[in-house]
Amino acid sequence: MKIGILGYGNLGRGVECAIRQNPDMELAAVFTRRDPASLTLMTEGVPVYHVDDAIAHKDEIDVLIICGGSATDLPVQTPEYAQYFNVIDSFDTHANVPVHFANVDKAAAETGHTALISCGWDPGMFSLNRLYANCVLPEGHDYTFWGKGVSQGHSDAIRRIAGVKNAKQYTIPVPAALEAVRNGENPELTTREKHTRECFVVAEEGADLARIEKEIVTMPNYFSDYDTTVHFITEEELQRDHSGIPHGGFVFRTGVTGLNGEHKHIIEYSLTLDSNPEFTSSVIVAYARAINRLHNEGVNGCKTVFDIAPAYLSPLSGEEIRAHLL
Amino acid sequence: MKIGILGYGNLGRGVECAIRQNPDMELAAVFTRRDPASLTLMTEGVPVYHVDDAIAHKDEIDVLIICGGSATDLPVQTPEYAQYFNVIDSFDTHANVPVHFANVDKAAAETGHTALISCGWDPGMFSLNRLYANCVLPEGHDYTFWGKGVSQGHSDAIRRIAGVKNAKQYTIPVPAALEAVRNGENPELTTREKHTRECFVVAEEGADLARIEKEIVTMPNYFSDYDTTVHFITEEELQRDHSGIPHGGFVFRTGVTGLNGEHKHIIEYSLTLDSNPEFTSSVIVAYARAINRLHNEGVNGCKTVFDIAPAYLSPLSGEEIRAHLL
Repeated sequence: MKIGILGYGNLGRGVECAIRQNPDMELAAVFTRRDPASLTLMTEGVPVYHVDDAIAHKDEIDVLIICGGSATDLPVQTPEYAQYFNVIDSFDTHANVPVHFANVDKAAAETGHTALISCGWDPGMFSLNRLYANCVLPEGHDYTFWGKGVSQGHSDAIRRIAGVKNAKQYTIPVPAALEAVRNGENPELTTREKHTRECFVVAEEGADLARIEKEIVTMPNYFSDYDTTVHFITEEELQRDHSGIPHGGFVFRTGVTGLNGEHKHIIEYSLTLDSNPEFTSSVIVAYARAINRLHNEGVNGCKTVFDIAPAYLSPLSGEEIRAHLL
Repeated sequence: MKIGILGYGNLGRGVECAIRQNPDMELAAVFTRRDPASLTLMTEGVPVYHVDDAIAHKDEIDVLIICGGSATDLPVQTPEYAQYFNVIDSFDTHANVPVHFANVDKAAAETGHTALISCGWDPGMFSLNRLYANCVLPEGHDYTFWGKGVSQGHSDAIRRIAGVKNAKQYTIPVPAALEAVRNGENPELTTREKHTRECFVVAEEGADLARIEKEIVTMPNYFSDYDTTVHFITEEELQRDHSGIPHGGFVFRTGVTGLNGEHKHIIEYSLTLDSNPEFTSSVIVAYARAINRLHNEGVNGCKTVFDIAPAYLSPLSGEEIRAHLL
């Protein structure tokens, strides 16, 4: 199976690593908006092309993994490339999924390609767990918690404040909220009760730290609805202690069964991830196998993780997965 | 969607309750080996027939849920009824899945029916989690723990000992083993290190308690490989404190990503269930929806949970699940 990567940032490099863990896959090409000569891949012998030349290589690639951002890249790129390739993206702007799905579905269906959008862990593995748990326990409550992990969007928002040189923001679930959910108390939780935010900020020399802290904790949408802690540290400390990109989270469904709802049940799914982009890439690469198979079976158009039978993700045969994993 | 229940024990009654939580389903009939007049259902107006008359009612039922035991009932019943009905069972003898699958597949495929075997939580939801996690993290370790919960098989084994009137056995994961796995230590665990067994036994008057305890803790296969605790209690205490059928457990996959496996990841799925048979039934009923749909689409033969796209389990449309659960 020949995989192409479009966009060689954290996610693209994660896809490259994940392909190396799957012997039935091969990295066929990387496409970049930068000067191709400026990129050094981890995998020897793989060509790097400018993104403008991607379409010329469409017959060399079974599945193209589009590693752009959800804000401006993917809404344009995924429908565009779905006309020429089988594609997968990790589009994660939940509110815009219906429009994105429709655009990609049209492009893929009209040209006989197979596409998967919103693949990764949330959306992705978390979505699957929400769906399965809702179907199994129709009378119940859903809870999703994120973290402890780095939020790129919140880190960026801090960096845009005047006087800030660098910053890293962690989203942290409130332990008491997790406990209440695990105890089956079905709490009604406000935004503030679910997560706290912890910020590590490198200020420019002579900057007004009190003003920066106030701008952070009062920032609408990003911080004002949360209990936020701000730590000022040096660039060296930031690089030493906060250079990773960990993340994770929890999906719960608590529900009842019985003639009168007399029996409680708790379903919990959790992820603890050292590297958010590498785990996301690993999910995407497993689904690349599925998309290639579906395409070979003549299934076209846009899919989500909900539409794909789990067996399609595995390199093993039906007999093998029934014998070893059922 | 019209559902039939074959076998009205704990599982059959669980299915009856689960159907009441799904407005698109209706209990059409119950089939029993007992005298039909001796059964009182929880649902008014539903006919009870003798199992010998089941085939005569095949056109009144979309999916027949076979609620027999895995040891002797299901190997015969599921292939037999798959000739006349779309069927689901909860066959859980892992070692015999290949043979059972082949028998059911032949019967269903030859007659144009759709069958699902080994549905529930293990096999079932745990199997799904093992498969997804293995595909996402190809380099890693799997761990499944069961409990705290009642093992019917182990309780029955104690009851067969001379001098024992009644008994209940709990399987309990060892907390230190769970912690080691959660810490990413990838421990190699013996049977004894993974689970302990706790037994509550009602002895006959004048029975030799020391002999009973010794027979339990030394029983091969069931107890001799475990640290087992035996408590002698009264029948009243057993009824008061141990009449429930709770269960649950944990599925872990711990794995690495990156160029040299430098990043660790932990996937954990856990269930805490007040009623083992009612939760199993709830899973089965969600899959009954999927089997009915697949049958209506012309898909025949035997399936497992691995073969069914998650969206088929939901009463919601593709648009709705993408908007609310992705």
